[in-house]
Order: sequence, then structure tokens, then C-alpha cells
Amino acid sequence: MSDDGTTSTDDARTSEQLVELAKRRGYFFQASGAYGGVGGFYTFGPQGAALKGNVEDAWRERFAVAEGNMEIDAPTIMPEPVFEASGHLDTFDDMLVECPDCGESHRADHVVEDNTEYEDAEGLPIPEVEEIIAEYELVCPACGAGLADQAVETFNLMFATNIGPGDAQPGYLRPETAQGIFVEFPRLKEYARNQLPFGVTQIGRAYRNEISPRRSIIRTREFTQAELELFIDPEDDEPDLSAVTDVDVTLYPASEQEAADGGHVETTIGDAVNDGVLQPWIAYYLGVAREWYASLGVDMDRFRYRQHLAGERSHYASDCWDAEAEIDGNWIEIAGFSDRGAYDLSKHDEYSEDRFTVFQQYDEPRTVERAVVDPDMSYLGPEFGGDAQAVVDALETKAERDRAAFAGESVEIEVDGETHEIPVAKTGFAVEEQTEAGEHIVPHVIEPSFGVDRLVYTVCHHAYREDEVDGEERTYLALEPEVAPTFVGVFPLQSDDELETRARDIVDELRAVGLSVTYDDSGNIGRRYRRQDEIGTPYCVTVDYETVEGSDASGDGRNGAGGDGETLSGTVTLRERDSTAQKRVAIDDLAVTIEALRTGELTFDELDG
Amino acid sequence: MSDDGTTSTDDARTSEQLVELAKRRGYFFQASGAYGGVGGFYTFGPQGAALKGNVEDAWRERFAVAEGNMEIDAPTIMPEPVFEASGHLDTFDDMLVECPDCGESHRADHVVEDNTEYEDAEGLPIPEVEEIIAEYELVCPACGAGLADQAVETFNLMFATNIGPGDAQPGYLRPETAQGIFVEFPRLKEYARNQLPFGVTQIGRAYRNEISPRRSIIRTREFTQAELELFIDPEDDEPDLSAVTDVDVTLYPASEQEAADGGHVETTIGDAVNDGVLQPWIAYYLGVAREWYASLGVDMDRFRYRQHLAGERSHYASDCWDAEAEIDGNWIEIAGFSDRGAYDLSKHDEYSEDRFTVFQQYDEPRTVERAVVDPDMSYLGPEFGGDAQAVVDALETKAERDRAAFAGESVEIEVDGETHEIPVAKTGFAVEEQTEAGEHIVPHVIEPSFGVDRLVYTVCHHAYREDEVDGEERTYLALEPEVAPTFVGVFPLQSDDELETRARDIVDELRAVGLSVTYDDSGNIGRRYRRQDEIGTPYCVTVDYETVEGSDASGDGRNGAGGDGETLSGTVTLRERDSTAQKRVAIDDLAVTIEALRTGELTFDELDG
Repeated sequence: MSDDGTTSTDDARTSEQLVELAKRRGYFFQASGAYGGVGGFYTFGPQGAALKGNVEDAWRERFAVAEGNMEIDAPTIMPEPVFEASGHLDTFDDMLVECPDCGESHRADHVVEDNTEYEDAEGLPIPEVEEIIAEYELVCPACGAGLADQAVETFNLMFATNIGPGDAQPGYLRPETAQGIFVEFPRLKEYARNQLPFGVTQIGRAYRNEISPRRSIIRTREFTQAELELFIDPEDDEPDLSAVTDVDVTLYPASEQEAADGGHVETTIGDAVNDGVLQPWIAYYLGVAREWYASLGVDMDRFRYRQHLAGERSHYASDCWDAEAEIDGNWIEIAGFSDRGAYDLSKHDEYSEDRFTVFQQYDEPRTVERAVVDPDMSYLGPEFGGDAQAVVDALETKAERDRAAFAGESVEIEVDGETHEIPVAKTGFAVEEQTEAGEHIVPHVIEPSFGVDRLVYTVCHHAYREDEVDGEERTYLALEPEVAPTFVGVFPLQSDDELETRARDIVDELRAVGLSVTYDDSGNIGRRYRRQDEIGTPYCVTVDYETVEGSDASGDGRNGAGGDGETLSGTVTLRERDSTAQKRVAIDDLAVTIEALRTGELTFDELDG
Repeated sequence: MSDDGTTSTDDARTSEQLVELAKRRGYFFQASGAYGGVGGFYTFGPQGAALKGNVEDAWRERFAVAEGNMEIDAPTIMPEPVFEASGHLDTFDDMLVECPDCGESHRADHVVEDNTEYEDAEGLPIPEVEEIIAEYELVCPACGAGLADQAVETFNLMFATNIGPGDAQPGYLRPETAQGIFVEFPRLKEYARNQLPFGVTQIGRAYRNEISPRRSIIRTREFTQAELELFIDPEDDEPDLSAVTDVDVTLYPASEQEAADGGHVETTIGDAVNDGVLQPWIAYYLGVAREWYASLGVDMDRFRYRQHLAGERSHYASDCWDAEAEIDGNWIEIAGFSDRGAYDLSKHDEYSEDRFTVFQQYDEPRTVERAVVDPDMSYLGPEFGGDAQAVVDALETKAERDRAAFAGESVEIEVDGETHEIPVAKTGFAVEEQTEAGEHIVPHVIEPSFGVDRLVYTVCHHAYREDEVDGEERTYLALEPEVAPTFVGVFPLQSDDELETRARDIVDELRAVGLSVTYDDSGNIGRRYRRQDEIGTPYCVTVDYETVEGSDASGDGRNGAGGDGETLSGTVTLRERDSTAQKRVAIDDLAVTIEALRTGELTFDELDG
């Protein structure tokens, strides 16, 4: 691992192994494999879907519920005018170069970055990228044909479709969940009773027609985002930083990236704000997210916040920091924290029929001077006939914009291209003091945006372990209890009706207290442990003859542990995934013990047995 | 309400009122309204998204977790070959007729059904529909122009898009979540360790480019499905009906729909199976679903199961029953329970590279007679040279298919269009007894498929109430605790720092026990009650001066109810939504009391106060 993106062999092997494990154990795999698959589309199997669900639930709890934000659920297909306004139709492009020989399309900026010393080709103008390709005689990564004479073109990354039959309307699959929130702002502010700041969240699919999808679920064409749009009054609203001020963070500001000897800055949220490195709102969310990521098992030694360089920012962002996790020696973006300013709401305010503003009441009503007119219609009427109202409007506008014009005997106005002189005495011009309670403002947007798929990948990658147990190599995922798709595996030691019945009773009992449990009776016990290790199941319970010998023989089999108050006695083996240590636990205490291990009230070491 | 689909005025008004309430209170509304909206796309606001999430969680708990099924999460965009195999590319069509005057497109079958005595025009061939339109001189529902000479065309309901740049691949937004499960069957069966029956579930978006989206969130173009695909061996697997045998159901079988005096059949699941009205697997899920719907608040007096008529079934289904809820006097499909037979897996087996079968071990190995050949190569080699292997293959096939051909002196085979006579003595023909452990079978599929949006609508519609309280009209949603987006509203009686602080403490305390709580201090108390009534919040807590007078004055404000063990004393008013009755409850008991009301351990009537 290194800061400059080099890959260590060992780390790349981890990803290879992880991708195999993910397929074998039902985490994730390329979709529609029976038909050869299509790049950039992945299916989450039973374990992956559960882990992803756990991550989403944890996000919802932290960024919606705990912060008091509102969650909504909007369609993924949106009509064209939305993306005209948002700028995605014009600017959400990648640079494309097509091979003249094999016809394969490549991202021109990636071809340049991978084969020259240019590091940020995405920010370069197209003619310059064409020049670099020609100058370096770059070739097709697929077949080796020269790309020097090929035109570099822009390729819009939105998936297009048509809505309805006949003269169908163009529609697009949203490239970010955010637009589903922004377009509904006029209604959402009502639900927030017009009080800033307020936040709206959404967890859902987003789509980008990537030219070259890469690296398993890291760069896909269909993915899940968890986004929070916080609407603030940039003049008045400040975050309460007290809860995050002492959070340690590794920052990589733009200034350090641009400096010859720049590097990571180890600091705290509070210090970074005081030093002017971070603005307060972004700082607040970086602090919250850092603690949250750690709770999910992201390795904080392989985690940093990197500020975007000016050329790298999206068309809507005035500042942006990425959360980055180190995977295979490369830093991968797993979240972005953007100050989108008034960009989005202003655009929708301009392009749509609705108003995307909030009325902000002043602390105290303000007195303002306002120039007004009260024209003498008995003069204007006869003088201008049908044009009299247009003259009144012109006078009003003139008064608002140019008081000085009313200083002389007459004032000059223009109506339909014709100039008129009006005696000031007939205009009723006056400067009045008016009291204003507040003003309509376009709120600014602070956006923490999380990639759920990349986080799933990171959590699995950072949890990937290999060790040796009893002379045999073992692979396991050291997943945190909060995200582990299965918390307990329950096995009968061997094929035996009594053991199997007792084991299934225990499954029912553990499920009844809300634990995620799997039952497995196939293959020898060692193989079953290995299977659960690979899935990342923190604990396994094995039912053996000591269990049934020690237990009350009056049990009536499968339904014994049900609602009739009967308890199982005897003991079982409880095995911890990471250490593979085993202890005997009384069945009567099992559910309580495992629940305490899950919440962290108890550690396995503290357990007797 | 009536069985034949007539609309009572009163009921239609309920939907109008509900749609307004849904918009006003943040349940659901047409998306992108600032740009005029697009038919068939709806956004769930904060209350709607929460209710929808509760419905999805309840479904997952019942149909995935409790049944021991696996949940997966697949992409919504799938490549064309999937839908060639599934039949959707060829047959997932509606009939379209375009108005020659105004250009609007209509579903031809709906135009016929709405204006003639034909009830199931969807099942008619296109020429017949054209004839009916001409014969009845049907007109455009939008502008009244005659449609008699217009061609009726098929319109495929899948949204199409292109994947990747350059020579892009066609892709489609899935019309059902099911295909994301079927295409991964070869891998999913491994996760199920090749044991039938096993079930796989998915909750996710599906898309249908409806010609005429209708009725709020009932017929949309983008919607959420919750589907279970149960893979069974049709020879061997039977459901355990014991848990559902006594469940009462209202059935409307095809035979009753076709009979002149047919009507609903009131029966139980057990009787319906014994009478041959229901097949066991579908019966099992109808029983489970009936209980589940009731627990979510679907009115069982406005609920039935209706069997599809033969002409109405999808291209893949051999039998199908819909769950239908009565809305505005019409019966609306809210779920379908299909026997898809071997259709889907056979198709994917045929069209793809993978095998969509499961090896089913026989209970005991079976001995079968098999005709085999063991040709004499010293004869065939010189005789046929390079064709000798082709001759061997032809002999093997002949032996498998036509033993009798080997009864004479010689046997006739064909290789590359040429006929050869081979002496039987040189073929080594024999009939042997072989032992087989099992066979590869294509599993059948039983599919309970739920429409989440329609269920959300039904739950709200069946919960919609109007009454009079203190001489004023009141509207409320009598939602079940399991689905209500907010369980408790907490209010300070009036604007007062002490009351507000105490109310916020209570909010924290109730949230800490996992309740969904909202705080509201805007407007007078009556208005706040009305707001929560419309949202369907089962209980409201009001903090008044009795609360703070009766409480320990040593509290340190907002954080008082936190982790420091201090308890609040005094009492609050607890108000029940449906009865509007109020009781005083000690703050010390509040969380426990409300939690008991939520789980049903306690009723409001049983409460002292």
C-alpha cells in the first residue's frame, strides 16, 4: 500500500480471492452469467443482499433517524427537463476513444493516465487529450492498434429510454438519487414547515453507463446510493460541532496534493475547522461518517478524506471531499461530501414553473427605503390611452432601479421601443420606508453521498483474513456484528435425529430474540465451520451428545422450545470465528449470552467455560 | 361496493380525499410536478416512504425469514437474451390504438371494455378488437374522434435502453423482479445445496411502460414488487398445510366467474384443497397471505382471491389466483399467486449456456434396462475409414431410440444423408440392466408476487376514516401499529421553554426504546392532533404544566432523560387516535406503556387514568 496508487502484489491477490469467495458463498457475482454476463451489472446473493441491507439500515439509523432528517423514495426514471436543468444532459460526459481495428471503446482519459505521466486527464480539454494520444503514440489496450488518428468524443453517461407510446417523451435513469430530492423541494419544504436547515435522505438505485466498468462491484453501471441533501441558509445556519470536534481524521487537502512534498495531514475535526482546512458543515459530516465507517469495520489505517482538485469537481460542486478506502494499494472513493451551493435549486427555480426558495424571517423586521410611484391617471389616461398601463409599469420599474432619474422636472421612460418624457409631478414618485419581515432565499445544499456497493466491497475486503488452524489454511471474513449477514450458525454434531431436533429448537429460540441464524447439517463439522468462517458468521453453536444427555428428557421434540415455557437444559459448544476458540455454554443461557456478545456487553474472553 | 365492478359515489370520493391527504401529509404524489409531471411516476414522501418500508420489512419477515427463504438483490437492467428466453420480448404487449385527430394513444382493450359488453377484451385477437371498434363506432376517449379505421397495434411494455457506448447492447428494465432470480438459478441452487424445495425472494423495482397509467399509485410505470420464487419437485414436494388449513377465505374461482349465477365462495383453505378448488402449494400461500394482509390492516370484508380465466393468464402461468382488494367499488389486483410450472427454467435452460436443472436422488437407486452397443472397430475401421466414429454415434442413437431395429440380421443407419447397412453381429448390441441414483429434473416454480405500491394504497384507503369530534369534521387514517410510519407524536401544550425541553426529553426517551416518534410544537394543540390524525399516528403525548409541576425540578434540561439514570416524574396526557380519548399517564411508565400498546399486550381501554 502507498499513497501514490501503486499496487502491491499481495493486496491484488486479496481482491482476487475475495471475488472468488463472494461468488462461492453468495455475496456478489456478475449478473446474467448464464448469458455471458454484461459488464457493470452485479447481483447480490443471499449473504451480500443481507450485508447490503444491514449497511443501508445502519446508514438510515445514523444519517436519517438520528439526525432527524426525512427519508423519501422517488422514481429512478425521470423526464428530460429535469436533466436539462440539472446540467447532466450537457455535462455528464466521459471522453471516449474507439479503436479503429477492434472497435472497442475506451475512456480516453484512462488511456492517457495509464500510459503517460498525466494524472488528471479527466480535467483536460478534448483537443489536448487527442494531442497527447498522438504525441505518445498510444495504442488500444485491447488489441494494440494505434489510436493516434482517432477522434476523442464525449459520451453522455445517462441511460436513455422512452416513456409512453406514440410520440414518447425522452426519459433518463437518474445518475444520482439527489435529483429526485431537488425536484420535489417545493413540497418537501412544506413538510419541513419552511424551517431551515432541514435534511432529506434517499437510499436507492442510480445508473451510469460507464464506458469501462471495472473491478467487481466498485465501478458498476447500476449501483445503490445513500444520499443526504441538507438545505441550509448559508448566512445563518451553523452545525453544532461539539459531538465531532475530537474525532481524529486523516486529511489530504488539495494544497497538499499540489505541493511537491505534500502528504496526509493527521488532525482532528475541530483543529481542521480552526485551521481553515475544512468548512464547518462538511467538517461535521466528515466527523460523523468517520465514526460510522469505523463501526462498520472499515479499517481506519486504510481510510482518508481527500479534497477534490479544482479541475476534478463536478459541475455543481464548489467544494468536495471524498472518503477514500485503500483497496489493493489503490485509494477508492466510497463517499463524497459536496458543497453544492445554490446550484441545484437555482437551476430548477429557473427552468421549472415552481419556486425553489424559502421565506426566511428576519430576527427583527427590517425597515427599508423603497422608491414607489402613484401616477396621476387623469393625466396618463388621456395622454397615452391604451398604453397608459404600460407607462405605469415602466415608471414602477424605473423607480425601483434608478431613483436619480426622478430628480429633475421630467423622467424619461421607454415603452415598446418609444421614448416618452413624463413630468415627475404626475408620477407621484416618493421614497417610502417599508417594513419587511424577511426575504425569499435559495437555500444552499450540503451533500454527503455514499456509494453502498463500494462500501460493501470495502467492508468485505478489509475483513478478509487468512490464517492457519490445526495445520490447515483457513479463510475468513472478520465482519463486525453490525453488518455480518448471519450472526450464528447452529449445527448438530452429526447426522442423528435427536441432535438435529435439538439444534432446530435452538435455531427457533435464537431467532425468537431477533438474531440472524443459519442451520447447517451438511458435511463434516470442520467443513461447516469453514463455510461459516468464509461467510463471516461471528459465532457457531454445536449440539452434541453432551447437550442431549444433560438435558431434560421430557421435551417433546421440535416444538419444545416454543411458547410453552419449557426450557432446554444441557450445554452446547460455542465457537468464536476469529480465534476459533470454543467454550461450553448452558443452553438456558445461550440466547442471552449470544445477544450480549452481539451488543458488545460481553466479550468471548469474559465468558466462563 | 359490488362484485361486478360498479363504482359507488361515496367510495370514489374516498380516493379523491385520500390522494389529497397523501400529497398534503407526505405520503405520495406525482413525481417531478415542478415540470408538469409524467404519467405513472410517483414519489413517496417521508410518511409514505416509512409506511412502504414497514410493509417491505413485514413482507421480508413473513415470506423470507419465517419461511427460511433466501433474499437476493439483482440489477433492474438486464440484457436482451434474458427476455428473448423469458418470452417478454415477443409477448409482453398491450393493444394500442392511436387517435387520428388528437394523436393520443389508448389501450384498445380498455376502450372496448369501457364501451361495450365485452369484459375480457385483453384476451381477444387483434382483428377481432378492430372489428368491435368499427362495429360499435367507438371513439377516442380524449377528443371524441372516431377510431373505426385505426389499426390496433401491439406495444411492448418493456422500457428499452442501450448498454455501453459504440455498438451498444440492447437492454431492458425488468418487467418483473422474478427474472433476476430465474437467470441465477444455476448458482442459487448451489447455495441451497441442490436440495428442493427452496425459495428465493427479492424486493425491488420493476417497470412497465403502460399506455395509460391510472389511479394514483395503483397503475404506475415504475413500481416495487416483492416476489417469492419457490422451486419445487412437482412429483415429490408437498406443502405442510397444517398451519393454514383453518384460515377462512373468500374465493372467486374461474368456474363461478363463468357460471351465469356464479358468486363468491366462502370456505377455508383446507376445504378448498379437499374440494379440488385449490392446488396445495397455491393454497398454502393464499392462507399465509390472507393472515398477513389482515395483520397490515387490509379490510377482510373487502378482500378476495380470484382465479384467472384461461384467456387472462400470463404466457408463463398454468394457474393463477389474484389477491384483490376492493377500492372505490372496484376489485384491484394487489398480488398474484402463479404456478409457472417448468416454463421459466426450461426456457433459460434452452436459450443459455447453463443448465437449469437439479439432480434429484431417487429414494432408492432404480434399475433400468438400457440398450447399448459395443461395435467391432476392426470391422468398422476398414469399412468406413474417417466416418467410423460417426457410424458408432449413429448406432448408439439408434439403440437408444429403436431397439427393434437390431432384431434382424442387419441394422440400417444414416450418416450424412447416406444410408448404411451394418451387420447386427458387428454392433455388439445388448440390453443391459443399469442402476441409476437419480435424475436431472427442471424444477417447477410457485410464485407469490406482491405489488408493494398497490398494497400501500389499499392499506391507506381501507384505513381512511371521517368522523366528527367536538362538532368539527375530522379525517384520520386508522393504520395498524405495524405499518404506521409514526407511532407517537409528542407536543408541548404551548410555547414555553420548560414544556418544550421536557417534551424533547420524552422524545429521546421513546426513541431510545425503538419507537418511531415525531415532535411538533407548531400551531395550536388541536391543529397538531388533526395533523397526526391525518398521518395516522396511533398515539399523541402532550406535555403540560401538570407535567412539569409534578416532576423533579433537579433535572438538567434536554439531556436529563439520557444515559445518566435520572427519570422524569409527573404525568402527561396520552391520547388515542381512533377514539380521541385521553388519559393521564406517569412519565415514569410512559415508554413501557406505549411499547405495550404497540405490541398489543395492553389496550388503551385497559389503561388507568
